[in-house]
Amino acid sequence: MSYVLYELRGAQNQAFSPFCWRARMALAHKGIQAETRRVRYVDIAKLELSANTVPILIHGDRVLKDSWDIATYLEEAEPKAPSLFPRGDRSFPRFIQHWTGTSVHIPIFKAMAFDIWEILDPEDQPYFRATREKRLGASLESTCLSWSQHVKELSAALAPLRSQLREQNFIGGEAPAYVDYIVFGALQWVRVISAGMLEKNDPVATWFDRCLDLYGGLGRSEPRAG
Amino acid sequence: MSYVLYELRGAQNQAFSPFCWRARMALAHKGIQAETRRVRYVDIAKLELSANTVPILIHGDRVLKDSWDIATYLEEAEPKAPSLFPRGDRSFPRFIQHWTGTSVHIPIFKAMAFDIWEILDPEDQPYFRATREKRLGASLESTCLSWSQHVKELSAALAPLRSQLREQNFIGGEAPAYVDYIVFGALQWVRVISAGMLEKNDPVATWFDRCLDLYGGLGRSEPRAG
Repeated sequence: MSYVLYELRGAQNQAFSPFCWRARMALAHKGIQAETRRVRYVDIAKLELSANTVPILIHGDRVLKDSWDIATYLEEAEPKAPSLFPRGDRSFPRFIQHWTGTSVHIPIFKAMAFDIWEILDPEDQPYFRATREKRLGASLESTCLSWSQHVKELSAALAPLRSQLREQNFIGGEAPAYVDYIVFGALQWVRVISAGMLEKNDPVATWFDRCLDLYGGLGRSEPRAG
Repeated sequence: MSYVLYELRGAQNQAFSPFCWRARMALAHKGIQAETRRVRYVDIAKLELSANTVPILIHGDRVLKDSWDIATYLEEAEPKAPSLFPRGDRSFPRFIQHWTGTSVHIPIFKAMAFDIWEILDPEDQPYFRATREKRLGASLESTCLSWSQHVKELSAALAPLRSQLREQNFIGGEAPAYVDYIVFGALQWVRVISAGMLEKNDPVATWFDRCLDLYGGLGRSEPRAG
């Protein structure tokens, strides 16, 4: 039974969404060749899947509408493939997901809010600007004026991850797992859209490089902005 | 073979150190009745254990000088007692330890730097003031003038933990484990020394309350400041 993954695309067909990258990496980890269909924000409602966001994974009559649900579904549907949740633990990936959603995504989003708008398909730009400026309480342009401050905040937020990755090669141990893909998605979002935000010798950057090499360089094969 | 735990004390014999509380809770989790010996900062060198900090755990000829080493030692020395590291995972507690050391301890320390000094034995106060003011680059008194800002920063830093504890009763699942005791130590440090920093209905406060009830109310039995 085949898998279909809907994921977000920019004007140049770039896959940039951090949440969609979680799903892509989870599929690759499980050794699944999914058919991927890239959509714009304005296309999601037209899919008639009662979803407002992507990733969406379709497998037979199952429709999974959230990156976490996709990962846990894959873990159950593909028990013989390598585990996304070593030792069956979901508390660590949940915590990392909560931590990434606040401490990591927020400074990244603020730094590159305007960069995201720029790479979107023109039909997506009004929706993105309206919803994000409301959330920010400021214009996209003015938010990213403080780029270096947001990047500094990101670097400070990454301190615990940096310490972890001085001790081991991946966030959950010596092999990659779903816990890695959650943070990978955030840094791949940066890589595809914007200028680098980490020092080259930062252990987090070194780990991200290792993740880019996984699964035949899946992450690396996505073109960078500019 | 008996266990002896050296831990830090204030002028009123309070056990206030977050790192020592990690060890106390780990011992209680393992059902071990350790002999506890409370010392001041100035006493540590006199123990002639080549240690600069407490907790120190002594078990036969083994001397463990760090809260993490104590926890991992107990896990190996007491394999039949409940596990401190469910499923054998140490990556999650390591991450939580790194996260607590930066995101949680720093705002707490800044908020109550002067409060800590106040509860210390007079012989400890000069050492504490000198080392901590050097670290802060400011006086203890001036640092805690921004109490409400530090508390706000703490509350923001706790966001991922708050989300986690909306989903489950303990940080690692439905039962307490070492991962809980790491954060417990930080909030017990606040409880013993200072005014409360969390809203009463904060899921983190509710979880802390559950932790205070553990092991016959071990944490709750330690008197509060003031």
